Amino acid sequence: MKLYDSKLAPNPRRVRMFMAEKGVSCENEQVDIVGGENLTDEFLAVSPRGLLPTLVLDDGTVLDESVAICRYLEETHPEPALLGTDPVNKAHVEARQRHMEFDGMLAAMDAFRNAFPGFRERGLGGSVGKVDAIPALADRGKASLLRWYAALDRDLAESQYIAGDSFSIADITALCTVDFAAGAARCPVPDECANVKRWHAEVSSRPSAGA
Amino acid sequence: MKLYDSKLAPNPRRVRMFMAEKGVSCENEQVDIVGGENLTDEFLAVSPRGLLPTLVLDDGTVLDESVAICRYLEETHPEPALLGTDPVNKAHVEARQRHMEFDGMLAAMDAFRNAFPGFRERGLGGSVGKVDAIPALADRGKASLLRWYAALDRDLAESQYIAGDSFSIADITALCTVDFAAGAARCPVPDECANVKRWHAEVSSRPSAGA
Repeated sequence: MKLYDSKLAPNPRRVRMFMAEKGVSCENEQVDIVGGENLTDEFLAVSPRGLLPTLVLDDGTVLDESVAICRYLEETHPEPALLGTDPVNKAHVEARQRHMEFDGMLAAMDAFRNAFPGFRERGLGGSVGKVDAIPALADRGKASLLRWYAALDRDLAESQYIAGDSFSIADITALCTVDFAAGAARCPVPDECANVKRWHAEVSSRPSAGA
Repeated sequence: MKLYDSKLAPNPRRVRMFMAEKGVSCENEQVDIVGGENLTDEFLAVSPRGLLPTLVLDDGTVLDESVAICRYLEETHPEPALLGTDPVNKAHVEARQRHMEFDGMLAAMDAFRNAFPGFRERGLGGSVGKVDAIPALADRGKASLLRWYAALDRDLAESQYIAGDSFSIADITALCTVDFAAGAARCPVPDECANVKRWHAEVSSRPSAGA
């Protein structure tokens, strides 16, 4: 397998962390998103949507989407289970992972892409052509992130991890979102969110967090 | 089981259609989103994020997210498989379903919510409080939908369904998006997209499409 990856972007980190939790490794090629390497003919020939991460299997199958790659890895390396166990738990983990994406990651992306000077004409990711950034969307993204942090803090007062008592893909998505929000989107966890800070310290200490 | 549902919204339709394909039925309660019934204390006590669909299991477990509900149904009613078969196919279906969401459904939502007069202060769905609509986002959503239709048309020149030779959740997401885009977001499939029109007629003729 070969992973097209970017050390700077949050979605490839989700896959690297998932792979590390599973003890899986593979060939890695860094692609410079800010420099536009993901929009070159060479990369688009591999992954037409122009997004990272992209995993190419040994038989040439291309998986161009973060959670789809995680699904493949869960199916081929079931232990430890990161997408849930029984039917209800699998559904709960899926719901929580998607809450993290829709309430957190999309907001962080809006906050970053629509404020970063280098992306003034790259308001959407990938091979969509020129799309103007929308400054109001950066402000909306930051407000959404603050709501998300507050909701997470309430949830994490009652459970160790995002989807209950076990570490799961929902924690990976949330950690990658928090670190991206704090860095690129300049919207760190507020001091009053003590439960988020406790959880963040705990999941950040896992070896996979440095993958 | 009980499904909190809205006949007018595209995400609940995804679950109704998935259930119909599986031959599953349950108690149904309609919630008036435009009238704000999803934001009342009564509904928020069931589903704090204030979004539809929400499925409540017989033991009281609440699943408040469309794809998580589909995951539960797939696990408990495996036939016909709508989330893929072997590891690679499951990953491919997941990727295609997510392409439909990120490139299609989110764009249709942006196009609708930011142009609909009743949602001027409901720029985001659910219990997030007052969020101003962003008119530029409605325009961006329509442009994204046109790009999505063009991409779908290229894909459907080469395959019968969205994720290959078998009907899957990706077709359900795509159908619900196309019909919502054409209706609420006033952005129908362009005439030149003959492959999309062929596919749309075919999936619309399934009994589940009327669920």
